Amino acid sequence: MPQKGIVTLPRPVFFGSAASVGGAEEEKGPLGIYLDVTDVEEDDKFGTDSWEAAEGEMQKRALTTAIAKAGLTEHDIDAVFAGDLQNQCVGSNYGLLDFDIPYFGLYGACSTCAEALILAASYCSGLGMGPTAAVASSHNCAAERQFRFPIEYGGQRAPTSQWTVTGAGAFLLLPEGEPGAPKITDFLPGRSIDRGINDLNNMGAAMAPAAIDTLKRYLDESGRSPDSFDLILTGDLGAEGTRILRDFMASSGYDISGVHEDCGLLIYDTEGTDKHAGGSGCGCSATVLSSAILPRMGIPERCKSVPGKRLHDILFMATGALMSPASVYQGNNIPGICHLVHIVSEGS
Amino acid sequence: MPQKGIVTLPRPVFFGSAASVGGAEEEKGPLGIYLDVTDVEEDDKFGTDSWEAAEGEMQKRALTTAIAKAGLTEHDIDAVFAGDLQNQCVGSNYGLLDFDIPYFGLYGACSTCAEALILAASYCSGLGMGPTAAVASSHNCAAERQFRFPIEYGGQRAPTSQWTVTGAGAFLLLPEGEPGAPKITDFLPGRSIDRGINDLNNMGAAMAPAAIDTLKRYLDESGRSPDSFDLILTGDLGAEGTRILRDFMASSGYDISGVHEDCGLLIYDTEGTDKHAGGSGCGCSATVLSSAILPRMGIPERCKSVPGKRLHDILFMATGALMSPASVYQGNNIPGICHLVHIVSEGS
Repeated sequence: MPQKGIVTLPRPVFFGSAASVGGAEEEKGPLGIYLDVTDVEEDDKFGTDSWEAAEGEMQKRALTTAIAKAGLTEHDIDAVFAGDLQNQCVGSNYGLLDFDIPYFGLYGACSTCAEALILAASYCSGLGMGPTAAVASSHNCAAERQFRFPIEYGGQRAPTSQWTVTGAGAFLLLPEGEPGAPKITDFLPGRSIDRGINDLNNMGAAMAPAAIDTLKRYLDESGRSPDSFDLILTGDLGAEGTRILRDFMASSGYDISGVHEDCGLLIYDTEGTDKHAGGSGCGCSATVLSSAILPRMGIPERCKSVPGKRLHDILFMATGALMSPASVYQGNNIPGICHLVHIVSEGS
Repeated sequence: MPQKGIVTLPRPVFFGSAASVGGAEEEKGPLGIYLDVTDVEEDDKFGTDSWEAAEGEMQKRALTTAIAKAGLTEHDIDAVFAGDLQNQCVGSNYGLLDFDIPYFGLYGACSTCAEALILAASYCSGLGMGPTAAVASSHNCAAERQFRFPIEYGGQRAPTSQWTVTGAGAFLLLPEGEPGAPKITDFLPGRSIDRGINDLNNMGAAMAPAAIDTLKRYLDESGRSPDSFDLILTGDLGAEGTRILRDFMASSGYDISGVHEDCGLLIYDTEGTDKHAGGSGCGCSATVLSSAILPRMGIPERCKSVPGKRLHDILFMATGALMSPASVYQGNNIPGICHLVHIVSEGS
């Protein structure tokens, strides 16, 4: 039977671990102290000789850390689902090359973290697999020179511009979990939505319509009110996209203002800095979810605990802008997509 | 339990339909008469104004045709898994934008057709879904100007060079099938393999080690001999990669010369043309499998039948080279990956 709407997993899958890697700007931000791995040189090269290689190194360290935290080895992992923003996804291709793990490359733009969690969870739960990994990353300098201009140019940025996060997150999903560990119970995959935005410096506006489409469908079908969740967490809408999402949801009868947060607005101090509308990139939601959110849901942690209200029931919605520089120069609009993951934790 | 090796689906999934789209060069080739859709203008633009948009149009026509052949509508399809070679996979992003179907973007380089079939089959079978689609494409002109040089330059090509196929294939997988319809029973996902090749004009050599790794593991674990299959079909190794694969398999005790074919060597007449080592690109294996192979396995067809021995038991192995132009210019090797899909048909 067709299941275009919410998809419930045959069996929930549990987060066995999550690991976060961040660059110098991310370390300075409000979540910096919760990052598992940062760059000792503080030049965002992570010991490599290019921004592109640095992003691969970040994925490698994120997955290595997640595997170690879960007390496993690479040989225990049945598959890894990974992606990034670089052309041909080489951040993931090279970063995960040394792991002896079946590899599925994804491209979901900044929605990749949620896409990877959905496909890893489906693979683990649906096929009766063992531990399955999801990894996503972005690197500010690699992304800026590829999508806009080399940062050395010092070009002035628009107020709606977002700051591509230098960060990576890795997650291990397990068929069985420790009591109280957070688990994925269901998800809602996104559809591509085009509302006519074609400004490379306003990704929030390009992605917000997809977030509206997905969230509205989820709430309509589940019959739940926004307030019944502890948190509705979008990936990287930033200030502009957040405004659009909240306004449109309100006009549809859903007031999400009390329960909605955006990873792009959590990761940096935007006041008085050059982060403008907030963080973006695959690494934004991956880093925030792994460093600051899952610890508040009781993920088995051996490193850092994060203060704040215990979270039991959240919607994680990562949005992506499905364009390339060439497609925008050729006059195309920027379609968006939003994948939703429902994460529940029964612990106290 | 870990299942790094062969993965058997909980329930087989059936091919409900397959559709192929090809450009002018592909239409001239030996499989041209089996293509479902070709370009009436014969300029490989498919009515659009750029090579990049043409690739999106090809994916759109491929999926539209596959849905029509299966007697379904887009509203019957639970998800589409798709990818291509363009930066940020915009061939798929834009080509499938108009379909109201949940969308998962993939990047597996030229292995994308097999990756999409594996993930669509897993999603359909593991989660108890309805019809699920897999789509892959490439476009010669879009790929050449992105990866090497604009074709207008007329640069001389190396003898080991392959010719990126202008083609797309779309497949509908169903939880239940007509009697005798081909079905996917199991698969073996690939691992990234790097054997030190760094020549952008010798993709066959870069990808062959991954094909060897995957095929050897499949035969070792299943205990089957190559001759027990009707066909072992690689994606786009071309002449160079085919030689390497056959030689290495022979040295491992597996003589595959009587049962192995390569899509890159089937799609063009390579003698006396400028196709050199054969076809390549995501569209190569997608077009050959959909146009010329699945009809010989009894896929429900309303259009064309393909002569040749009836095939009951084949291995479809698409290989990909996981690099970008930037990664090669920065001195990196070209890792390869090979995903294997086992397709069986019990009809006569």
